[in-house]
Amino acid sequence: MKKFLDENFMLQNETAVKLYHNYAKHMPIYDYHCHINPKEIWENKQFKNITEVWLYGDHYKWRAMRSNGIDEEYITGSASDYDKFMAWAKTVPYTIGNPLYHWTHLELQRFFGIYDLLSEKTADIIWKKANEKLNQEGFRVRDLIEKSNVAYICTTDDAIDDLRYHKLIREEGKMKTKVLPTLRPDKAVNIEKDTFIGWVKTLGEVCGKEITNYDEFLAALEERINFFHEEGCRLSDHAFDYVPYREASKEEVANIFEKGLKGEKISLEEEEKYKTALMQFFGKAFAKLGWTMQLHIGAMRNNNTRMFKKLGPDTGFDSINDLNIAYPLSRFLDSLDKEDKLPKTILYTLNPKDNYVLGTMLGNFQGGGIPGKIQFGSGWWFNDQRDGMEEQMKALANLGLLSRFVGMLTDSRSFLSYPRHEYFRRILCNLIGTWVENGEFPNDMNLLGEIVQNICFNNAKAYFNM
Amino acid sequence: MKKFLDENFMLQNETAVKLYHNYAKHMPIYDYHCHINPKEIWENKQFKNITEVWLYGDHYKWRAMRSNGIDEEYITGSASDYDKFMAWAKTVPYTIGNPLYHWTHLELQRFFGIYDLLSEKTADIIWKKANEKLNQEGFRVRDLIEKSNVAYICTTDDAIDDLRYHKLIREEGKMKTKVLPTLRPDKAVNIEKDTFIGWVKTLGEVCGKEITNYDEFLAALEERINFFHEEGCRLSDHAFDYVPYREASKEEVANIFEKGLKGEKISLEEEEKYKTALMQFFGKAFAKLGWTMQLHIGAMRNNNTRMFKKLGPDTGFDSINDLNIAYPLSRFLDSLDKEDKLPKTILYTLNPKDNYVLGTMLGNFQGGGIPGKIQFGSGWWFNDQRDGMEEQMKALANLGLLSRFVGMLTDSRSFLSYPRHEYFRRILCNLIGTWVENGEFPNDMNLLGEIVQNICFNNAKAYFNM
Amino acid sequence: MKKFLDENFMLQNETAVKLYHNYAKHMPIYDYHCHINPKEIWENKQFKNITEVWLYGDHYKWRAMRSNGIDEEYITGSASDYDKFMAWAKTVPYTIGNPLYHWTHLELQRFFGIYDLLSEKTADIIWKKANEKLNQEGFRVRDLIEKSNVAYICTTDDAIDDLRYHKLIREEGKMKTKVLPTLRPDKAVNIEKDTFIGWVKTLGEVCGKEITNYDEFLAALEERINFFHEEGCRLSDHAFDYVPYREASKEEVANIFEKGLKGEKISLEEEEKYKTALMQFFGKAFAKLGWTMQLHIGAMRNNNTRMFKKLGPDTGFDSINDLNIAYPLSRFLDSLDKEDKLPKTILYTLNPKDNYVLGTMLGNFQGGGIPGKIQFGSGWWFNDQRDGMEEQMKALANLGLLSRFVGMLTDSRSFLSYPRHEYFRRILCNLIGTWVENGEFPNDMNLLGEIVQNICFNNAKAYFNM
Repeated sequence: MKKFLDENFMLQNETAVKLYHNYAKHMPIYDYHCHINPKEIWENKQFKNITEVWLYGDHYKWRAMRSNGIDEEYITGSASDYDKFMAWAKTVPYTIGNPLYHWTHLELQRFFGIYDLLSEKTADIIWKKANEKLNQEGFRVRDLIEKSNVAYICTTDDAIDDLRYHKLIREEGKMKTKVLPTLRPDKAVNIEKDTFIGWVKTLGEVCGKEITNYDEFLAALEERINFFHEEGCRLSDHAFDYVPYREASKEEVANIFEKGLKGEKISLEEEEKYKTALMQFFGKAFAKLGWTMQLHIGAMRNNNTRMFKKLGPDTGFDSINDLNIAYPLSRFLDSLDKEDKLPKTILYTLNPKDNYVLGTMLGNFQGGGIPGKIQFGSGWWFNDQRDGMEEQMKALANLGLLSRFVGMLTDSRSFLSYPRHEYFRRILCNLIGTWVENGEFPNDMNLLGEIVQNICFNNAKAYFNM
Repeated sequence: MKKFLDENFMLQNETAVKLYHNYAKHMPIYDYHCHINPKEIWENKQFKNITEVWLYGDHYKWRAMRSNGIDEEYITGSASDYDKFMAWAKTVPYTIGNPLYHWTHLELQRFFGIYDLLSEKTADIIWKKANEKLNQEGFRVRDLIEKSNVAYICTTDDAIDDLRYHKLIREEGKMKTKVLPTLRPDKAVNIEKDTFIGWVKTLGEVCGKEITNYDEFLAALEERINFFHEEGCRLSDHAFDYVPYREASKEEVANIFEKGLKGEKISLEEEEKYKTALMQFFGKAFAKLGWTMQLHIGAMRNNNTRMFKKLGPDTGFDSINDLNIAYPLSRFLDSLDKEDKLPKTILYTLNPKDNYVLGTMLGNFQGGGIPGKIQFGSGWWFNDQRDGMEEQMKALANLGLLSRFVGMLTDSRSFLSYPRHEYFRRILCNLIGTWVENGEFPNDMNLLGEIVQNICFNNAKAYFNM
Repeated sequence: MKKFLDENFMLQNETAVKLYHNYAKHMPIYDYHCHINPKEIWENKQFKNITEVWLYGDHYKWRAMRSNGIDEEYITGSASDYDKFMAWAKTVPYTIGNPLYHWTHLELQRFFGIYDLLSEKTADIIWKKANEKLNQEGFRVRDLIEKSNVAYICTTDDAIDDLRYHKLIREEGKMKTKVLPTLRPDKAVNIEKDTFIGWVKTLGEVCGKEITNYDEFLAALEERINFFHEEGCRLSDHAFDYVPYREASKEEVANIFEKGLKGEKISLEEEEKYKTALMQFFGKAFAKLGWTMQLHIGAMRNNNTRMFKKLGPDTGFDSINDLNIAYPLSRFLDSLDKEDKLPKTILYTLNPKDNYVLGTMLGNFQGGGIPGKIQFGSGWWFNDQRDGMEEQMKALANLGLLSRFVGMLTDSRSFLSYPRHEYFRRILCNLIGTWVENGEFPNDMNLLGEIVQNICFNNAKAYFNM
């Protein structure tokens, strides 16, 4: 029997062990997609206790606690930080088979040197040990990043963001880690939402001219893209509950935009026409600048109206959509490729039923001499666990080239999440090691080590070119 | 090489063996969903031969025989019981990889002490041995149940059923097993079917008042729910080929009901509005009484018209539907939760492509301090096999809390099906044992044993609270 | 650690080894579906170099090269055969986890006795060795077929094909391998395509009478079916991006046909009505003659407009569709079965999310005393790899009878593809061997060997009856 979470955690054979320890472990981290707050990096925030860093914003843990019958009071309510930590500690032993069990203990080990298993019994001592460390120097945000050997962090930023903290960090010049922005223009795309009119107004203010029509709107967006580009941004990110694709003339789209700006009712057909056109505009702009476009497909958000009214979005009430995506996604990508204006693109799916659709969609648009120009994004959100990552990597390997994969990202709101890269690397090394041990690939350590290091870091570095 | 079906069947490692033999094996059975006939329990039926108990109603076996090229004469036709048994015996060796091979030999071993492998060669001797036992005392229905250590049986009962046999069994007070009804009001929901008008009429008769409008209909249904509640029922069950969700005013729904009652044509839109509203009515009624609502989603029934005309429903001509369910299911559950009237709910899917949709749907509506309030039902029907059960449990574990799972049910029409609980428990122990052996969970036998026993029995007992 | 690609390649246990070497290995090949050119068989073509036989038409390899960043010049462009081979050689080491890595080395070993691993370093020596062989006698098309122990080859032929080469091969009487045609009438079905009018015109010419209405069209098609039948054809093949099913009267369909013939615009609804009716016509005709109908469901072709304009179809720009197929497929099969005119049918899906839908669809229409009358086709195209084949076989085993499976086909355009049968057989033996080693099926070598040999060859021979 293997010991739980020892140095060979997730490594089931000799080749996997060698690949991880000799090749993967020491590679720097390229965290090209996350949701951490650059302000907290700039200010080098210190946390008052482990509840703040672990539980304040982590809706994965909140879901687990709700499933365990914990009262909301102890999750997002007014209970004390200590009581919230206890509620989480009680839940942990019952997360068997869930990645939370692994993440929890990886984070306790790697950042705090705590090797106890978290449960009601050990909670008190862990609370004290962890808080003691957090209150010392050496446990601020930048320390956590540095200890984790993170070379690049790409945050996710509204297109109207002034990127003040990215600038400050860059100008200060003290961090070894590059902290770069990612353009997230969802509020420009979501014409059907309440946020639209206000957002366009602010966009106008940011650009110093009122926006009254579609051309002015595109000009302002282009200005923002250029501004982000100057700040080192080479990535965009877009959320699609499903993939809308509906062609329309420029004139039609301009009219729909103006209706939206006046607050008139937009039909679903109009919404889809507008979104298609705007995404085409973005795609072409990114292609021109050599950016990478990330499409996150298939989330169904805010399912619980009662809790949404209480807690707002991103509080653990999201799940997986199951709409058909193959045809509209093909048409969207082709509409750009037809004019040779398809940027490097990463396709993520939240629904693993789409793994084979995406794994083969890539191949339709590879080319232009860029290895892995179209990428299949690593197991996203609910798929960010051993089975999900293995399925994504096996689909990619069977249908395309795993060796050209740009690898893992945290997608996290927490500064303690970097061990997810370790977790991924162990799973990657185990998968490849298993193939080799089974005689399905030759035992050529130089080649295997090169492939592993490429997936850990080098592929991303070459691909994003930041 | 492991021996076929020895004491460590399906248990691939030491931890799995310990978990099964020390914790799982002796737990009583909570069979919270099945289709056995309470009359046969009351009458303590004796079977004339193994064909009667094994082959008369088992469409799983019928499908296998048809696939094997057996003539229908020997399946549902007029061949003798002996010849039908022979036809099945001939088929068994060719069911390699199918759960029927395991169920067949588990049932021969556990009930009859027969350790021979069924085939054409051994059929004659097994026919004699099994029938000899069945003709003795000790092999009647209640004996089979008692030998299987069944604590609870929940049958499936039409909402107009008088529950006479449940009452008789209860009043007699001799059985250690609790035999309780489950409300299945599909005929009230299926307004588009030929059965609707007649069913409403009978409902009126049962309640002693003619039903002429929607309010009277709801009142009668409520009366039936209360009647079932008094008889100990705490469960409902509903079949959805897909999930219809379409909002409508009460008035609209009342009009649709009246059209249906008059035999007027109902459009698909009207059908969906009616079904949505009626299911909301049921959901709220169940929430009030603390019941659990079971939704069986995704069967496509009676695909073979020619055979349907000959044999009727439930004869082995059903298969898996593949419609998109995420959005309407989310809307339906939210429509109840919005008013805080969502009952405990078990979601079953027949299509394993939906495992991740359901596994994440749960999390949207967990809460209220009930551990695992929304459950992901065990691998249903075509998924009731090793791969299907493992996929369901891994999805549940990765996306929620396996430890809060209410576990297995037989869903069976046969009194010989209880070894399916044993089969499930072996697979469960093997899954958890494998995690532990691989160092993915600590080797804490107390915790593991508690989790296993909870999934085998205790979770169901606490959850259903019958 | 197992050695890469040794004699026990893909065989992870003793039982698997025995099953493969003692039972599977020497069985002849029944290649009942492929796309090789009968002209090249008749002419017994010799290849000038390995690039011609390996890379000229293999879009699997093209996709891998594009994903690897190889310039199109070296894929389908004007680079020399040597440079194209080098480009492929450079790509091979980076296909880890992809079946191309296995196919490549299986083919080098089996046909050329080359045991080196292909890479940039070894490319030159392999180029020389392989070409030396190809330029000798003993490496012509018929030699490759004969060495591969192929008993039957079923090509894929347009319904207007004169089958000249099949005839010539048959009349010559020298080949031990039977080379038989398969009717592929897609151009008759695809009324919406540009090819339709011309095809119907040619059909008329082939049949010696102008086709002006639907009845004449059906008569001509029937003539072609009979012609193919006389040439030994017992198979048809049909491509469905999705399954259209829409009922219509004969009169309606006749009108739609005439509109199509006149080049008038056909609505989607009309297209679906026409296709449904024509497929019903075909199904009935095949049932009458005892043919087997193959339905290939779920490809989404020619996604890349830019490359389609350059290179045309079948150049590596196809992927997987994800439409819902359960209901229309059930209705189509039932529409034939209702009149007891459903032929033997093989259902293939390109989207593995449909494995369970198809695996249960079979059971709806089994019967008539034909073992495995409705077949679940082996892992098709993108699924033609270890994981894909295992998933298809496990679905078939869990939901039906694996033992009645007609097994593997190459679906290939290359004469070097026969080792894919070996690959399949190894995976099959490993799957069954694993069940036996784990105690999930008895270690009865006679039964196991019979089942394996049936799936390798005997089932197909009995089923197709050619």
